[in-house]
Amino acid sequence: MTARRQAVLGILGGGQLARMLALAAAPLGVKTLVVDSAPDACAAQVAPLLAADWTDYAALESFARQVDVVTFDFENVPAETAHWLAERVAVFPAPRALAVAQDRLAEKTLFRECGLDTPAFMAVDTRADLDRALATVGAPAILKTRRLGYDGKGQFRLRTLADADAAWAALGAQAAAHGLILEAFVPFERELSVVAVRGRDGDFRTWPLTQNWHTDGVLSLSLAPAPAVDGLQQRATELARTLAERLAYVGVFALELFVKDGQLLGNEMAPRVHNSGHWTIEGALTSQFENHVRAVLGLPLGDTSARGLSAMFNWIGELPDAAPVLQAVDGHWHDYGKQPRPGRKVGHATVCAVDAKSMAERLAGVARALQRESQAEPAIQVLG
Amino acid sequence: MTARRQAVLGILGGGQLARMLALAAAPLGVKTLVVDSAPDACAAQVAPLLAADWTDYAALESFARQVDVVTFDFENVPAETAHWLAERVAVFPAPRALAVAQDRLAEKTLFRECGLDTPAFMAVDTRADLDRALATVGAPAILKTRRLGYDGKGQFRLRTLADADAAWAALGAQAAAHGLILEAFVPFERELSVVAVRGRDGDFRTWPLTQNWHTDGVLSLSLAPAPAVDGLQQRATELARTLAERLAYVGVFALELFVKDGQLLGNEMAPRVHNSGHWTIEGALTSQFENHVRAVLGLPLGDTSARGLSAMFNWIGELPDAAPVLQAVDGHWHDYGKQPRPGRKVGHATVCAVDAKSMAERLAGVARALQRESQAEPAIQVLG
Repeated sequence: MTARRQAVLGILGGGQLARMLALAAAPLGVKTLVVDSAPDACAAQVAPLLAADWTDYAALESFARQVDVVTFDFENVPAETAHWLAERVAVFPAPRALAVAQDRLAEKTLFRECGLDTPAFMAVDTRADLDRALATVGAPAILKTRRLGYDGKGQFRLRTLADADAAWAALGAQAAAHGLILEAFVPFERELSVVAVRGRDGDFRTWPLTQNWHTDGVLSLSLAPAPAVDGLQQRATELARTLAERLAYVGVFALELFVKDGQLLGNEMAPRVHNSGHWTIEGALTSQFENHVRAVLGLPLGDTSARGLSAMFNWIGELPDAAPVLQAVDGHWHDYGKQPRPGRKVGHATVCAVDAKSMAERLAGVARALQRESQAEPAIQVLG
Repeated sequence: MTARRQAVLGILGGGQLARMLALAAAPLGVKTLVVDSAPDACAAQVAPLLAADWTDYAALESFARQVDVVTFDFENVPAETAHWLAERVAVFPAPRALAVAQDRLAEKTLFRECGLDTPAFMAVDTRADLDRALATVGAPAILKTRRLGYDGKGQFRLRTLADADAAWAALGAQAAAHGLILEAFVPFERELSVVAVRGRDGDFRTWPLTQNWHTDGVLSLSLAPAPAVDGLQQRATELARTLAERLAYVGVFALELFVKDGQLLGNEMAPRVHNSGHWTIEGALTSQFENHVRAVLGLPLGDTSARGLSAMFNWIGELPDAAPVLQAVDGHWHDYGKQPRPGRKVGHATVCAVDAKSMAERLAGVARALQRESQAEPAIQVLG
C-alpha cells in the first residue's frame, strides 16, 4: 500500500462560506487552509487558519506553497492578490472572472452581451455624470459603488430626481476609488436566483431556481425550488451556462435575477457559493459547497436535483432560540459560531418537506414558535 | 446584544467517529476538542487535538477545564480515565454504561435480564473453565476476550471440541488480564443492528433496523432500512429502550443482533456512534452523529426517519477510486483522511435511492464500476 497525500484547498476569507466549504471538503478527503486577517474568523473552528492580510505577501507565499488550489470565501479579495496567487498556484474561479463579477458595470455589460436584459444603468464618475445618468435612467433609481458592495452596502436609493444631492453626499466620495453606477429601480414581481457550478472539464449544472426575499438589502428567506417558474428554469440555466462559458468559470456562482412581466432581468452575479444556495446542504442531492470543492479540485460534479422543497431562514444580528428548528421534522440548524453584531449573518436554518402543503405547515410552525411569522409569510403565500 | 460562549464537546479518541462527530457538531455551534495520543489522528483535520495518553492526568485536567461535556470515539478508554473525568465534568455515556458495554459477560447478562435472548455463553478464566464451557455451550463456538475486543479482534473460532488447545494457545494469555468468554456459534439467518439515541431528558429514538454483512469480522456492507423485518423493528426498539433505561444511557449506541428462526438474539452493544449507522448522514432526517451531539449536550433530539433506502460500503485497508461514487446519483463519499493500512477502516460510501429497485440498480452500478460486485451482492439479493 502506497502512502497517500491529501489535496489541500486554500480559501481566501474565513467567514461562514469558508466554514461550510471546509465542512463539505472533509468527507471528500480534502484538507483546507484558510487565510483571514482575523485569527478568530469562524472558519478557524473547523480548519487551520493562517492569520494574514491580503497584502502580506510573505504569508501568501507560505500559503501558496501549502495548498493545491485556491478559492474564495470573500469576493472582494483585491485583484492584485488573486493575480499574484494565480502565478503560483491554481486559483478558481480565475482572477479574470472574479474581476468581472466584482465590477457592477462590467458584470451588467456582460449580462447584456449574453442576452440577459438588465435594468437600465449608466456609469457615474462625477456629480455631472449623475445628472446625465438620472436623465437617461429616470427615477426611482439606485446609486451603487461599482466595486466592494454586497448585502445592500454601498447603495443609495433615489426616489425622485431631487435626491441627487443626497445620493452624491452619501457615495460621491467613493466615485474616484471604486466608481459608481446608477441603476433603474425596477418594480419587479419576484426575486429569483440560480446557483450554478462549472467543473474544470466544462461540465455544467444548475440547482433549481430559488425564490428570495430581502429585508434591508439582506437575504431574509429563500424557498426552493421556486414555485411556478414555468420556462424560467430552462432560460436561467441557459443564461448561467453562457455566462460561465464566456468567463471560463470554474466553481459555484449565483446569478441573482428579477422577474418583471414574466421575464428575467439580471441583477448581479456572485462569484462564489451563495446565501441563496444554503438550502442545498440538506435539500439537494449534492450541496453547493460540496460541488464547489469538487469543481475546483477537478473531481466529478454531483447531481444538483432537489430532494423535495426547502425553505431557508437567514439569521441576522443574533441567533434566535434553536429549539423550534431542532424539534421540527426535517429542520436543520446552522450556527456559524460568530459573536452577535447588528447586521451580521450569524446563522441560518433550513426546513425541508416533500410537498408544498407540508412545507407551508412546517414553515408556519417554526415561524410561529420563533415569533418570526413575518419572515416566513411571503414564502407561505407563494406556496399557496 | 450579549456576547456568547459556544459549548465545547470533548471527545476521547480521534478516529473517524470523532471526525464525523466534529463535522456534525459544527453546524450546531458546538466546538470540539479531541484527545488522542497520535497527533496526526484523523479527527485533528477538522478539530483541535490535544495529544495525550489516557493516563496523562495533567493533560486530562487541562482537557476537562476546556470542555462542557465529554464523550467517546473509542469505547475502550480505560474505566479509570472515564471515572476520573466524570468527577470533573459531565461524561456521556456515563462510565457505568461504558463499563457494561466493555465487558461481554456483563453485556450479555444484561441482555438476558432485559428479555433479549443470546447465544449460549460462559465465562472462561482458566483452561479447565474452557473445557467446562465447551461441554455446556458445545461446538462450533467462539472464544473471545471479555474486554478490548472489536471488529473480530481478540476472537478464536472453535469448529470442534478438538480446537480447545489451539483456542487456549491463541487467547489463554489474555484470560488473566481481560477475562474470556465462550459463546455458542449461532448459524444465524441475518445480522441486523438497531442504532438508538437517548437524550439527557430520557427522550428515546431509534433509526430503522439496518442489515449488515461482515467480511473477516469487519463490517463490509449495510442496507437500511433492512427489508422485510415485519415485527422485528418494534421488538428491537423496545429492547434498545429497555437497555438504555436500565443503563440511564445518554447518547447514541448500537445493538447488534442476529436473526435466528425469525427471532432476535443479542450479539453485542456498542456504546457509541456505530459503523452500521453511517448511512444516516445522508439517509436519515437526522444523522447518528448529530443526534449524539444533541443528546450529550442536552439539546432536543432530531427525527430519525429514513429518507428512502441507503446502502453503505465500508472501505477497509485503502480507498478505491472515488469517481464511480461521486458520479452516482445520490452517491456520497466519506474519506477519513487516513493513511492506508491493512485492516484499517479508511472510509465509506453511501448510495441512496427512493425504492428497492433503484437501490439495487444503483448499488450494482457502483459495485461494477469499482469491481466490488461481491461486496454489494448480498444486499442486491435481499432487495430482490
